[in-house]
Amino acid sequence: MELNGVPIDDTYAEAFPTWVSRVIITAVTEEWAYRSAVEAVGFATSAIGCPAEAGIDCFVSPDETPDGRPGYAILICASKKKLKEQLVERISECILTAPTTAAFDGLGDVIADVPEKIPVKLHFFGDGYEEKREVGGRTVWAIPIMEGEYIGEEEFGAVKGVAGGNFFVMGETQMSALMGAQAAVDAISGVCGVITPFPGGIVASGSKVGSKKYKFMPASTNEAYCPTLKGKVESSNVPDGVKAIYEIVIDGVDEDAVKLAMAEGIKAATKVPGVKFISAGNFGGSLGPFKFDLKDVLADEL
Amino acid sequence: MELNGVPIDDTYAEAFPTWVSRVIITAVTEEWAYRSAVEAVGFATSAIGCPAEAGIDCFVSPDETPDGRPGYAILICASKKKLKEQLVERISECILTAPTTAAFDGLGDVIADVPEKIPVKLHFFGDGYEEKREVGGRTVWAIPIMEGEYIGEEEFGAVKGVAGGNFFVMGETQMSALMGAQAAVDAISGVCGVITPFPGGIVASGSKVGSKKYKFMPASTNEAYCPTLKGKVESSNVPDGVKAIYEIVIDGVDEDAVKLAMAEGIKAATKVPGVKFISAGNFGGSLGPFKFDLKDVLADEL
Amino acid sequence: MELNGVPIDDTYAEAFPTWVSRVIITAVTEEWAYRSAVEAVGFATSAIGCPAEAGIDCFVSPDETPDGRPGYAILICASKKKLKEQLVERISECILTAPTTAAFDGLGDVIADVPEKIPVKLHFFGDGYEEKREVGGRTVWAIPIMEGEYIGEEEFGAVKGVAGGNFFVMGETQMSALMGAQAAVDAISGVCGVITPFPGGIVASGSKVGSKKYKFMPASTNEAYCPTLKGKVESSNVPDGVKAIYEIVIDGVDEDAVKLAMAEGIKAATKVPGVKFISAGNFGGSLGPFKFDLKDVLADEL
Amino acid sequence: MELNGVPIDDTYAEAFPTWVSRVIITAVTEEWAYRSAVEAVGFATSAIGCPAEAGIDCFVSPDETPDGRPGYAILICASKKKLKEQLVERISECILTAPTTAAFDGLGDVIADVPEKIPVKLHFFGDGYEEKREVGGRTVWAIPIMEGEYIGEEEFGAVKGVAGGNFFVMGETQMSALMGAQAAVDAISGVCGVITPFPGGIVASGSKVGSKKYKFMPASTNEAYCPTLKGKVESSNVPDGVKAIYEIVIDGVDEDAVKLAMAEGIKAATKVPGVKFISAGNFGGSLGPFKFDLKDVLADEL
Repeated sequence: MELNGVPIDDTYAEAFPTWVSRVIITAVTEEWAYRSAVEAVGFATSAIGCPAEAGIDCFVSPDETPDGRPGYAILICASKKKLKEQLVERISECILTAPTTAAFDGLGDVIADVPEKIPVKLHFFGDGYEEKREVGGRTVWAIPIMEGEYIGEEEFGAVKGVAGGNFFVMGETQMSALMGAQAAVDAISGVCGVITPFPGGIVASGSKVGSKKYKFMPASTNEAYCPTLKGKVESSNVPDGVKAIYEIVIDGVDEDAVKLAMAEGIKAATKVPGVKFISAGNFGGSLGPFKFDLKDVLADEL
Repeated sequence: MELNGVPIDDTYAEAFPTWVSRVIITAVTEEWAYRSAVEAVGFATSAIGCPAEAGIDCFVSPDETPDGRPGYAILICASKKKLKEQLVERISECILTAPTTAAFDGLGDVIADVPEKIPVKLHFFGDGYEEKREVGGRTVWAIPIMEGEYIGEEEFGAVKGVAGGNFFVMGETQMSALMGAQAAVDAISGVCGVITPFPGGIVASGSKVGSKKYKFMPASTNEAYCPTLKGKVESSNVPDGVKAIYEIVIDGVDEDAVKLAMAEGIKAATKVPGVKFISAGNFGGSLGPFKFDLKDVLADEL
Repeated sequence: MELNGVPIDDTYAEAFPTWVSRVIITAVTEEWAYRSAVEAVGFATSAIGCPAEAGIDCFVSPDETPDGRPGYAILICASKKKLKEQLVERISECILTAPTTAAFDGLGDVIADVPEKIPVKLHFFGDGYEEKREVGGRTVWAIPIMEGEYIGEEEFGAVKGVAGGNFFVMGETQMSALMGAQAAVDAISGVCGVITPFPGGIVASGSKVGSKKYKFMPASTNEAYCPTLKGKVESSNVPDGVKAIYEIVIDGVDEDAVKLAMAEGIKAATKVPGVKFISAGNFGGSLGPFKFDLKDVLADEL
Repeated sequence: MELNGVPIDDTYAEAFPTWVSRVIITAVTEEWAYRSAVEAVGFATSAIGCPAEAGIDCFVSPDETPDGRPGYAILICASKKKLKEQLVERISECILTAPTTAAFDGLGDVIADVPEKIPVKLHFFGDGYEEKREVGGRTVWAIPIMEGEYIGEEEFGAVKGVAGGNFFVMGETQMSALMGAQAAVDAISGVCGVITPFPGGIVASGSKVGSKKYKFMPASTNEAYCPTLKGKVESSNVPDGVKAIYEIVIDGVDEDAVKLAMAEGIKAATKVPGVKFISAGNFGGSLGPFKFDLKDVLADEL
């Protein structure tokens, strides 16, 4: 199986459930909405060491936001228990505090039915000076603050989505693999309802569960995918001629969104000179309930 | 007291101790170092709701980094107990995972004596395949990962620094105040050893300790500084003609750095048309051991 | 007539014909397409002193470009005679020379009928080593260069479009007007088939034809719209309470595109705090064949 | 001769005289200064097809600008005759028209003696409403415009500098060469008094004088440096294993600045994985009066 001349591994990505909320941050200009979004989705690459996984989903044009201002939609992904706390903290510390921003629930824009609503009672911050309003058909609270007023909804939809959709971009040189991964991230940024939570959207280090040598470690480097260890470890999965591998990890609101993101990302990566091989990561299928077979994902392209 | 025609309040900023580490992130290009830095300092505006306060200190040119590549220095600020955890998590989740990055201790570049060293044992991630190296006179670990190797130091300096240095930019219109605050943040970005941890460097919402109406709230809006409440609350601190107030909060490695940042920031803000008044926030002097009197801060300018 | 509480002047914008081409620049990543586009549309604010008017129209997703890579569409506007020269020079100096770029005709994507085709024979640069190919159904030339191959079409559509569509954003302070103008530019960037050719999309200085004092000057400042001259000149058009005015100038492929851009831009500007008045520039209707009455432009909003 | 394990060709770059001016653009924030600078240096890659060569030299901090605001210094390079016209047009169309900008002469900041001053009489634009002022010890004109006032100097230093300093970055893959070139451009951006005028600072296409096949062409592709023609042309200069070549072209105020830029750029490029060879371009020494021998340029590094 080849796409744009690049072999596609006959394998699948294994992914897991996560709870997901989607917040639309609007502001006076695109730039100010973006800055708040960047702060709100930081320190959120992997649920293993970060309090959540989060990222910018997409730009939302003024015609599509409740208050007619430009906005960015972000996804915040965590266990159901942690999601409420993360919504409260990230909205109150990174959006309420940001210049000119407002926050609205944006999950209903990307999925048909929103199964749950999480209350995020920021209005108590107003100490009684706050008041209810309506903006674009939404019930919001207006809270007096130093810059004027903060406007925000207080209920955010949540859905059981997908975490850990993924594929590997393997390159003839490290820079070929990196640019292939960058092209993939660019392409995925055009897909609604997904994020690539790692720095710049790209993972430079893979991991396996546990450690052979250091028993106290819950995870350690995945030596089978380390190009510098090819020939030094028993069974390496690094194809001949591959000098570097990057992983694109995708979280999304549902399987369809993740599947589309994988397809767009892989298609883009295979167009970059020096990309030699595409694969995906799984744990033998025993852990994750979601399986994204690359053959299926790319069915329309092949 | 006036600066560039703008009245400067006869008051002081009150600030608190915090522990601070400074990490230099290098990468193959400036852009990739920046992307990792942005992820590593996200969700870190205020220690109240975030696990740390963090921000980008400054660009570090290839001539000044241990590995001769371009870099960004970040500050991570937290209680001593939390700082180690935050260093470990932010380096392992946001730097180790980022394309082409390396991490080095950068505290010694901005203070004369580094009192403490915090161990950050990432090398166990290598599962025995890691090895010690020397880069630019530093002892580092090289850990095999999917992109090749991650290089990093494992001890990071820590110092008792200053959190909560601040000043207020008040404007004739909201946009005048916002651009004044932006000009301040721009100017402070040129000062070494400090960060402005809020979104885009600016705080749109101030707070007071506790709440008059909602007893369960640890903090609530500071109505005395809310322009929309002027005339509705008993004693407002919003000067006549001021429609919006932004606060610049500054964390730094020591008092001198914070003082210089305040001076540069205030100077820049007063040059922006429509900025009407500069003040600073304090709690009557009873809480914070550090006091930055605006008269002293601006002594060289007035 | 008011929009979002901001008075809209009962006047019209007067505009002129110009010839327009639209070039799609694709590259390995969005960033590299963008860099080439920025160079290609520089020094192109006004046909009075620049060799052309040019700007970035919009991002073009991989699914919409001939080669399946990400791209940016730019507009180049000039007299029919000058347009060919400007196409040749800007493509050969700013796109052919840029890393990984390809150039395709993009006019047919935004207008129904392309009346003219301008030949741009870059393939002679190949000195006989070039060859014809087909990419995405387009006939292109592949020219061997140092990085590998440059791919490009050699005929670019041209249409008689509109230059000088405009409106004025007037503010209570300079920064309010500036942010209002920025919000307008943000909104217009979402409209296809138009550009705002001035720096950052905004004009800080208006002009009148000729000069009263310096007879050799073809154009000079428009004192009737200078806030600092209100009270010093006989008839000022600066409304009371207005401290600054910015103009948004719009060039587009046809009247509908310019009209839509004006509507979106004005709507966005009126949402910015401190924007006091919206007007537009004309020369009494004697010069330009196109008239955009603000009442008509905003008919759907009012 | 090797640097960081990369062979350095035993050759030299040949360069030519050009006249150079340096303009400091200040604005209310860094961003607005940058936007004006980007417009002012656009369409300016090569004097062959563009009206000038131009680029951003460096950021200038508020402490170093005449008006205490943040700024960017740009270089404009052209023949002596064309330089005046280009200064006038680029300042009047791209700086005077830009929001909040001021323009100052910045050549004296990077060379000891400024041999010539070029008058740029923008103040006539004020139609008699303009007035002389002093800003930071400079005589400037304040011209009333729509946003308020434009402030600018009217004499700009000019010096006979160097155009066409250069080196080649050759890579094992195209992406390795491109990232090597990018790292070089990053490093050169830290050197004062130089620019890399091509898109993103990088040249993807080299040229030779004239054409073998098309006699009417003044320049055509340099087949000896085209990787896809290796084996098809008689004498290729593409080393074995090289798949792509990028050229970095440097213009500067004097030989020292260009030499330093070459050294910093080459040093940075050789640190990028997959960069295989560094060379430089010359015409046998018969044309350009300036010769930059790579051995000399890198003397401190080798």
